[in-house]
Amino acid sequence: MTSLATSLWDRFGSLTTADIPEGVQTIARQSMLDWFGCALAGSAEAGPRIVREEFGGVPGPATVIGQGTTTAASHAALINGAAGHALDFDDGNAVMRGHPTVPVMPAVLAVSEELGATGSELLAAFVAGQEIQARLGRIMGGSQYRKGWHTTASIGVFGATAAVGRLLAFDSERFGIALGLAASMSGGLKANFGTMTKPFHAGMAAGRGVTAARLVARGFTANPDAVVGSQGLCAATGLPEARLDVLDDGTWFTTRTIFKYHAACHMTHAAIESAIRLRAAVGDDPIERVTIAAHPDLMSVCGIHRPRTGLEAKFSLTATTTFALLGIDTSDARTFDDSTVARTDVGRLIELVRVDTDPSVMPGTSTVIVEAAGRSHRQSFDTNAPATDLTVQGDRLLAKFRGLATPVLGADATANLIRHVHNVADLDSIGVLGETLRGN
Amino acid sequence: MTSLATSLWDRFGSLTTADIPEGVQTIARQSMLDWFGCALAGSAEAGPRIVREEFGGVPGPATVIGQGTTTAASHAALINGAAGHALDFDDGNAVMRGHPTVPVMPAVLAVSEELGATGSELLAAFVAGQEIQARLGRIMGGSQYRKGWHTTASIGVFGATAAVGRLLAFDSERFGIALGLAASMSGGLKANFGTMTKPFHAGMAAGRGVTAARLVARGFTANPDAVVGSQGLCAATGLPEARLDVLDDGTWFTTRTIFKYHAACHMTHAAIESAIRLRAAVGDDPIERVTIAAHPDLMSVCGIHRPRTGLEAKFSLTATTTFALLGIDTSDARTFDDSTVARTDVGRLIELVRVDTDPSVMPGTSTVIVEAAGRSHRQSFDTNAPATDLTVQGDRLLAKFRGLATPVLGADATANLIRHVHNVADLDSIGVLGETLRGN
Repeated sequence: MTSLATSLWDRFGSLTTADIPEGVQTIARQSMLDWFGCALAGSAEAGPRIVREEFGGVPGPATVIGQGTTTAASHAALINGAAGHALDFDDGNAVMRGHPTVPVMPAVLAVSEELGATGSELLAAFVAGQEIQARLGRIMGGSQYRKGWHTTASIGVFGATAAVGRLLAFDSERFGIALGLAASMSGGLKANFGTMTKPFHAGMAAGRGVTAARLVARGFTANPDAVVGSQGLCAATGLPEARLDVLDDGTWFTTRTIFKYHAACHMTHAAIESAIRLRAAVGDDPIERVTIAAHPDLMSVCGIHRPRTGLEAKFSLTATTTFALLGIDTSDARTFDDSTVARTDVGRLIELVRVDTDPSVMPGTSTVIVEAAGRSHRQSFDTNAPATDLTVQGDRLLAKFRGLATPVLGADATANLIRHVHNVADLDSIGVLGETLRGN
Repeated sequence: MTSLATSLWDRFGSLTTADIPEGVQTIARQSMLDWFGCALAGSAEAGPRIVREEFGGVPGPATVIGQGTTTAASHAALINGAAGHALDFDDGNAVMRGHPTVPVMPAVLAVSEELGATGSELLAAFVAGQEIQARLGRIMGGSQYRKGWHTTASIGVFGATAAVGRLLAFDSERFGIALGLAASMSGGLKANFGTMTKPFHAGMAAGRGVTAARLVARGFTANPDAVVGSQGLCAATGLPEARLDVLDDGTWFTTRTIFKYHAACHMTHAAIESAIRLRAAVGDDPIERVTIAAHPDLMSVCGIHRPRTGLEAKFSLTATTTFALLGIDTSDARTFDDSTVARTDVGRLIELVRVDTDPSVMPGTSTVIVEAAGRSHRQSFDTNAPATDLTVQGDRLLAKFRGLATPVLGADATANLIRHVHNVADLDSIGVLGETLRGN
C-alpha cells in the first residue's frame, strides 16, 4: 500500500466532528453556506441549465439545487458543481491551489442524501475531503496550475473522492484504490477559462469523485500508486519527483480558506480592493492613467484586456479595476453582464488602464496607481491572507449569502437555510438541508 | 476559429461512405466486427459488470452489448467501452498511438441508435472519428504516451467527440468548440494498466465524447484553441510546440489498423509470434535460457516479470512468451486466468526467461532467442506492419470473432451479426445491429 493513502487516511479516514477544532468547523460551515449561495444563484445561468438538461432527467434521490428536483447522486454532483462555480464567486484556498468547496460539497451532499447521513457525518466528510485535497494540492497543485491544468478540477477530484470515501467508511486500502482511480479521472484545462466549460470542470470533479468512490465500494480495482508512482499523475503532469514529506504537517488547511466578495476571477480581487480604496483620494479628478502592478502569472488567467462579454470581464484585470474605479458594484453578480462592458464610461476609462507585470510581486497582491490631475495615488492589497476575525467574516458572508439566495428561495427559506447550516452538526438527517436547497 | 478544427472538419466534417475508398470501408467493417466480438466476450468480465451495475440502470435507447438491455447513450458508451477493452484484445493503430475502435465505436453505436441513423451514416461517422483521432494522436499521442498518459482514452475522447459531431451534423465552429470541451475531458493514466481501470478509460473516452458533442449541440461553450493553444492540452501534457502541418496529409490512417490475435497487451505480441515460430525448431529439447530483445519502452507497459494473476499476465512479456513456448493458446482469452499463471511448467520456464532491452530495436518488433540442448534459436517478428492482404485478415478475424461471440450469442445470432456488419452500409436502420448485439 502506498504511503500516500496510508498517511492521509491514518489522519482523516475516521475523522468525526469531535476531532475537528471549533474554528475549523466554523470555517467549514461558512464555506458550505457561501457555496450554497453561489449554487443557488448560479443554477439560473445558461451553462448549468444546459448541464441540467443533459444530465438532470435521471431519477434519483439527490437534490438539484434551486430547481425543485432530484436525480442520481453522480449526476446531482455534476450539475450542482457546475452551478456552484458558474458565477466564479465561491471560496478559494492557496494550498489546494484552487476553489476547494465546489468539487467536494456537491459530492458530499449528494451521497449524504442517498445514504441518509447525519449533519455531523456530512460535516466531517466535507472537512476530510478539504484537508486531503489541500495536501494533494500542496504536492502537485502549483506545478499543474503553471502547466495549464485547472486544479479546482484536477486536484478537486481527489477531495471529492476522499470525502465520499469517508461517507462510505472506506479503510485505507479502499481509499488508496479510489485515489488511484481518481488519478485517471483527473483533468480540466485553464485554456477553457472564460467559457461554460470552466464551471463544468468543477462539476466533473464532483461527479467523478462520486463515481470513483462508488465503483471502488463495489470492488473495482486501480493502482494505489497512480498518483505519485511510476507513470502516475505527478509524472504525467510534469512533476517527476513528488515530495510526500508535506503530508506530515499537522495543520488544518481548511483555515486557509479565503472568500470572494467580488463576482469575478479571484486574481482580480487585489486590484479591485485597491481601486475601491483609491476612489476617495481620487474624487472627481479626471483620471489620466491607471497602472496595475501584478505578478505575470495573472495574465494567463485574467489577462483579457478589452472584454466583449460579461463573462470575459470576470477574467479581465483591466475591466474589473475599471469597474471598481467607476464605483460599479463588483460584488453584484449582475454587474458581469454584457451591458456593463458596453458602457461608454467603461470603454473610455479602460483605454487608460495598463498592467505592468512584475515577477517580484507576491501572488495575491496587486498595486493600483492612479494618476489624476497631476497627482499619483497608490494602493496595494493582499487577498491571499485568510481573515483573522471569523465573526466579521461570518457577518460579511451572511450578507453575501442573503444577496445570492433570497431572489431564488425567498426570505423565509433563506433564513431557514442559514439556520440549518449553523446547526448542521446537530441535524439527525440532512434531508431538511436538501429540501430547503431544492427550493420547494 | 482554430486552424486545427477547420482543417480537420474541411476534410471529414461532411464525410459520407461515397467518399471513403472501398479498402478503407473494408478495414472499418473489420474493426467494427472485431470490436463487437471483444465487447460481447468482455461484457462478462468483473470490471465491466461493476461499471454496468453503477451506470446501467438509467433508462434509455442505447444497447448494452451482450446484456439484453438498453440505457442512456452516454452510459451505454461508457459501459460498452469498458467491456470492449476488458480483454485487451481489440485493434490498435500506431498513428493514433492506442486502440482506435474502442473509444469511438461505442459512442457511434449509442448515438446512432438514439438518432435512428442508417448504417451508412454510422460507418461514415466511425471513419471520420478514426481519421481525426489518428491525426490528434499524430500531433500529441507519442509525447503523451511517453509521459504516462493512456492515449486510447486521452486521444480517443477526440475520436468519439468527432464521430458524434459528424452524426449530429456539426459545422466546423461547433466541431471546434466540441474539440475544446473534449480537451478538458482528456485523461487516463498508464499507471492503472493491469487493473479494471484500464478498460474503464476506454469507456470514459467513449462516454465523454457523447457528452461533449451533446452539450455543444445544446449550445455549450468552450475554447476551440484548448487543444493546441496557450494553456491547452498539448502544453499541459508537455508538448509546448504542436506541429499542425501533419494535418495536410491525404492518407487514410484507418489503413494502419492492426488486429490482435493474442488476448494480451499488444506489446507482447511480437515476442509471442516469435516464440510460436520457434517451437518446431526447439522441439522437445530442454530449454536452458530464453532471451527477449525488446525496446525499453515495453518495460513500462508489459514489464511485470512474475505475474500473480491472469490479468497481470496480459502485461507480462516474460509470461506471454513462456505461454507461447509451452504451446499454451494465447489467442484464447480464457488462457489469461489465474490458474494458467499458477501452472508448475509455467513457473519453471518463466524463471529461465529474461528481457534484454535495446533502444535500437524497432517498436513493434521483438526477437526471441531460445538456448536449448546447446543450440541457439533466434526469431524476430514485427506486429506494427498492417496486413497486406485484407481477405486473409478478414478470414482470420472471422475465426477470432466466432470464438468470442458464439459463447455469448449462439451460432445463429453470431452469423446474423457477421451478415449485418458485412452489409452495414446498406442498412436502412441500425436497429437490427443493436438488437443482435444485445443478444435478445
